[in-house]
Amino acid sequence: MKFKFENTTRIHFGQGQIKKISRDIPQDHKVLMIYGGGSIKNNGVYDQMIEALKDYQWGEFSGIEPNPQYDTLMKAVERIKAEGFDFLLAVGGGSVIDGTKFISAASRYKQGDPWDILDAQSKVEDAIPLGCVLTLPAAGSESNSGAVISRGTSKLVFRSPLVQPKFAILDPVVTLSLSERQTANGIADAFVHVIEQYLTYPVNAKVQDRFAEGLLMTLIEEGLNVKEAPEDIKVRANIMWAATLALNGLIGAGVPEDWSTHLIGHELTALYGIDHARSLTIILPAVMKQRRKEKRAKLLQYAERVFDITEENEEQRIDEAIERTVKFFRELALPTSLGDVNLGAEVVEPVLANLKKHDRVDMGEHGDINLDECRLILQAAV
Amino acid sequence: MKFKFENTTRIHFGQGQIKKISRDIPQDHKVLMIYGGGSIKNNGVYDQMIEALKDYQWGEFSGIEPNPQYDTLMKAVERIKAEGFDFLLAVGGGSVIDGTKFISAASRYKQGDPWDILDAQSKVEDAIPLGCVLTLPAAGSESNSGAVISRGTSKLVFRSPLVQPKFAILDPVVTLSLSERQTANGIADAFVHVIEQYLTYPVNAKVQDRFAEGLLMTLIEEGLNVKEAPEDIKVRANIMWAATLALNGLIGAGVPEDWSTHLIGHELTALYGIDHARSLTIILPAVMKQRRKEKRAKLLQYAERVFDITEENEEQRIDEAIERTVKFFRELALPTSLGDVNLGAEVVEPVLANLKKHDRVDMGEHGDINLDECRLILQAAV
Repeated sequence: MKFKFENTTRIHFGQGQIKKISRDIPQDHKVLMIYGGGSIKNNGVYDQMIEALKDYQWGEFSGIEPNPQYDTLMKAVERIKAEGFDFLLAVGGGSVIDGTKFISAASRYKQGDPWDILDAQSKVEDAIPLGCVLTLPAAGSESNSGAVISRGTSKLVFRSPLVQPKFAILDPVVTLSLSERQTANGIADAFVHVIEQYLTYPVNAKVQDRFAEGLLMTLIEEGLNVKEAPEDIKVRANIMWAATLALNGLIGAGVPEDWSTHLIGHELTALYGIDHARSLTIILPAVMKQRRKEKRAKLLQYAERVFDITEENEEQRIDEAIERTVKFFRELALPTSLGDVNLGAEVVEPVLANLKKHDRVDMGEHGDINLDECRLILQAAV
Repeated sequence: MKFKFENTTRIHFGQGQIKKISRDIPQDHKVLMIYGGGSIKNNGVYDQMIEALKDYQWGEFSGIEPNPQYDTLMKAVERIKAEGFDFLLAVGGGSVIDGTKFISAASRYKQGDPWDILDAQSKVEDAIPLGCVLTLPAAGSESNSGAVISRGTSKLVFRSPLVQPKFAILDPVVTLSLSERQTANGIADAFVHVIEQYLTYPVNAKVQDRFAEGLLMTLIEEGLNVKEAPEDIKVRANIMWAATLALNGLIGAGVPEDWSTHLIGHELTALYGIDHARSLTIILPAVMKQRRKEKRAKLLQYAERVFDITEENEEQRIDEAIERTVKFFRELALPTSLGDVNLGAEVVEPVLANLKKHDRVDMGEHGDINLDECRLILQAAV
């Protein structure tokens, strides 16, 4: 086991933490607050932000869409260059934070066209410091260094330690205003993040496994609780903290990973506009079925430790673990097949063409999920 | 649930990581390597350090004892002031790292006598940056901001973000040369760290609980494995990573804590020279028994989740959980009563006198472990 682990984001967790912003942004900075469609004006967050920023020079940029669009983000870059903002404050969910990370890097990119950061994986040499106020627990972007950006039917990833948020405010009260759909999507996104760093093959990384299983059990338990008691702040808090820890580098340290569900899902979102989390709950069961042999030992461990399945027959144990995963998603009213979102076998070839275009041809923990394997996964998802 | 969580230490985990030092210490720094009794000269670490530091100006300071002594540390401070070292490299276990943290703060302390940092909890305003190479998984000091320093029969704690290590090298190969006693002590120290952040009362912090339980299960499992297979590097790796995560701030974020076992244990070490970890395995079972009522709900959860105890009768479940804890320590050849280290009821009053002197009069998750309660705990440990 070999890894580097570092996570420098300062987390302020709990009710009333938004006012702490002024402790973490030097007073002489000119702050650009970046947000999405304006829901923060209805849930009280915007007013808290104005109060927290009252001693700063600041401006705002709104309209970051789900699956943040390159063209939108470049408008923010122009504005920053024109007005000299030198601290960015993302207020929103993963899309706003991801978008802000790209804005941060693109604003100081001097090697040419900022599109290269995504398309050519050109190294980020400088970036505007950023912090965030999380409103939707899901992506984990608030304490990692990655971002997913869309342009047309391309959905691309970049990473740089320079865009790791300096701080993240996690106030679970903010999440009380989320719709049932947003809440369920967030839980599923976090759940699949954990699975993709866990459901591979055993390397005897006992701590990482126990932590991953702990997050999965928490997300399942609180995912069902939040349906019954959406106002329960302790349930909201557990979901929020679990989603952050699902993708902050900790459970993935030193273990194999399989991001094929996300990468295939990205193409479903790019081509058919399926919510990100829903693309995952459609693809994951198919990956589990199609990769049953390669993931056998970990599927058995998942069955036993996460669902307490003790059937004598190992095949039945795996069957039941997959069924319980599907059942969990369905209890959250999430789709688990292409049919559930009115798509079918007609998507297989276009998705494969996009995967090929984006060079997603050697995915998975063994690097052997090629286009033929993806075809079988997609067919299993019909 | 409300907390701040931040851990800036960069972890390099795995075989052959010592050479990474040069990436993390700027070349223009003058490095003082600080170590203990010289075991690093026998296990190959010293040679690796010399190789890693070959492009630096550097010196060395050895002789940091277990339970690092103030007077020894102040000699290092004098040397640093005379020779202008501006980066400290701790190479050893918790004692060396704790000692280096104090040296780091004391060397730049300008408000008067550095003893005030410990005795008067005077705030650290400046400190020399430090990194560490861990040789004994136990204390967790390699990625936190605290240190325990001894002077005569006083054992005192200080904390400052300025002494948080910039990096920590965790190479489990280094731990192959530890004696069985050192290994067992380290496992017990880490185990008790987790217990003290877990075995209090429930606050519905589901992630923290699951993570704590995961660490406890890992330490129990690998604690028994390492006896059978001391050369198994994967077992050593799991112990090392678990010990670091046991006290890096993560599992304690937002939950009640009870450090009474450590604080009472410190006095046993200061007065009678009992190994730190052994003072804990003597006191913890007594704390569990004496605080059974206050810790009832968590003791039941511990029984069920960590030991899979499913007795119908709750009292029996708690009894068995305490017995299993004792059994685990005994399997590691650790003492679980004062009698096991040839002490008895005669220690009770001297320990109480020291606790009073150090103002340890309101310990525990409810702040109600006063001297009378400590007397009962000590009597239960006889």
